[in-house]
Amino acid sequence: MSSFFTVRYSSGKVTLLDQTRLPGEEVYVELGTVEDVARAIETLVVRGAPAIGVTAAFGMALAARTGHPLNEAHERLARTRPTAVNLFWALSRMKSKWSLGVEALEREAQLIYDEDAEACRKIGELGQGLIPDGATVLTHCNAGALATSEHGTALSVIRAAHRAGKKIRVFADETRPVLQGARLTAWELMKDGIDVTIIPDGAVAHFLGRGVLDCAVVGADRIARNGDFANKIGTRGVACLFRAHDRMLYCAAPWSTVDLALASGDEIPIEERSPDEVTTLAGVRVAPVGAKARNPAFDVTPAGWIGGIVTERGFTGKDVAAGLARLAEVE
Amino acid sequence: MSSFFTVRYSSGKVTLLDQTRLPGEEVYVELGTVEDVARAIETLVVRGAPAIGVTAAFGMALAARTGHPLNEAHERLARTRPTAVNLFWALSRMKSKWSLGVEALEREAQLIYDEDAEACRKIGELGQGLIPDGATVLTHCNAGALATSEHGTALSVIRAAHRAGKKIRVFADETRPVLQGARLTAWELMKDGIDVTIIPDGAVAHFLGRGVLDCAVVGADRIARNGDFANKIGTRGVACLFRAHDRMLYCAAPWSTVDLALASGDEIPIEERSPDEVTTLAGVRVAPVGAKARNPAFDVTPAGWIGGIVTERGFTGKDVAAGLARLAEVE
Repeated sequence: MSSFFTVRYSSGKVTLLDQTRLPGEEVYVELGTVEDVARAIETLVVRGAPAIGVTAAFGMALAARTGHPLNEAHERLARTRPTAVNLFWALSRMKSKWSLGVEALEREAQLIYDEDAEACRKIGELGQGLIPDGATVLTHCNAGALATSEHGTALSVIRAAHRAGKKIRVFADETRPVLQGARLTAWELMKDGIDVTIIPDGAVAHFLGRGVLDCAVVGADRIARNGDFANKIGTRGVACLFRAHDRMLYCAAPWSTVDLALASGDEIPIEERSPDEVTTLAGVRVAPVGAKARNPAFDVTPAGWIGGIVTERGFTGKDVAAGLARLAEVE
Repeated sequence: MSSFFTVRYSSGKVTLLDQTRLPGEEVYVELGTVEDVARAIETLVVRGAPAIGVTAAFGMALAARTGHPLNEAHERLARTRPTAVNLFWALSRMKSKWSLGVEALEREAQLIYDEDAEACRKIGELGQGLIPDGATVLTHCNAGALATSEHGTALSVIRAAHRAGKKIRVFADETRPVLQGARLTAWELMKDGIDVTIIPDGAVAHFLGRGVLDCAVVGADRIARNGDFANKIGTRGVACLFRAHDRMLYCAAPWSTVDLALASGDEIPIEERSPDEVTTLAGVRVAPVGAKARNPAFDVTPAGWIGGIVTERGFTGKDVAAGLARLAEVE
């Protein structure tokens, strides 16, 4: 078991590890209103597609417990972040239980948590075979326990490979602007005693060119039917570079991230966040006063650029669209 | 004329705009010893291959004027930074005048400055035809007036296109870890009234995928005979992404950056700087205590990935090696 937790619920209270304060401080915040939960999602106190879904489910349980109108709570939580489909998936699963009362909603939210943890454990088990012994593995952003209920997605694969006795080394790119790689992935992996090295985002091509990086594993925020997937800004570039250097990049995500309603990645809405995240770094201003900046929070990686997607239902293989169609039949 | 200057010399004093304090403060530092000049180069008070060369030349003039042994000064300045060849080129040009006395050395250093300014002006004039009217142009790091004696290299091309009346827009990637894009390029271009938008390094692929970026212009720290070139870390990735998205990236550099002694980019020494530049920013820690980081300051872009190199002698065209061989005959 981890020495920390990402999100917990107990009778009308949602407790979150405040990820905006990591790695400097390990502080938990207890939230008692739907508005507090919504703001925590918007301000990245909790982030990562599966963790956002689980937190929103607990937010609905909290709403039921505190007598907050469910349709209003649902609408508020749905407005927090547009890209991760797990949010809408979890809210819609909760909605199917609205009529059953408080305890049924609390049970459903905890079930979403437990199922996510189990899916993430399974993703590690199924995915670790993709990582060769002795490999140096790149990961982008944080697709770890901090992004899920437990274990992580990409980091679950890495953890399982490590547990299987493979001598692996992780390179975490820092992932500007919010630095989830430097702040969160390095923190998680160091706690587990997994060898991790932080590099600037711009250094990925250098280490590929020098033959240092063997493969990459990343998470996803939404996967379209054809296998295109949205993930943290920078993923598309990393995938393009790995392909150009004949190295495999894999995506790891629970099935709740798959959005079969979308034909391709073109249909995934991309959140654009405040330019202040770019013009400041860790609270320090780094750009001239008045400078313009753009801050798309996600990008879309074409399915054809990657080695496949691993979910708790299995691995798609390189023909990602066919693999997803096959896995869609599994229950 | 610019409202600032990068480096100046006057009878035994080298004055530098302290680039580590930009964009927050515009402060000039006056240096009176060889050791001060060497440290200013090492700590990035002045940076950019041509500006390093010019500053080292002034450092030798200062040595002569203050009676510092020339061989010792030469050796100290040569130890500052290994990648930019302009440093060694300028020191060796100064060495050929050692026997001629203080005033000859001061004249030679000023000539290096003036020739660099004129080369940069010419690079803009020759290169601006590569930029289509209406284009959105990416630039990486700072290859501006701050990186040269005047005008810049990549930014000279952009300035000349702007002066020619072309409606262009610049995207400056921030260029972690030292943020020359966000801090310096945005500052320079805003002073000139050129439309500039800062993006995280990881967002380049997103904007290429959306068709926002039309071409790129970057500088160089050393160009090998076959056209491979070293430039600020991240350039290789940007070049790879532009190529994968069928968009042209051009390199702009004075001929003093060309190192015909090297057959290919494999022979260019790559400086690795302190990991603290990655794990902290302005004293603020952004990574867990004890985290490992790697910080290569440059990478190498293969000649085959780019649209060509523009120097004051002319444009190489897409067959960069052949173009360099042709330009080597020009005087």
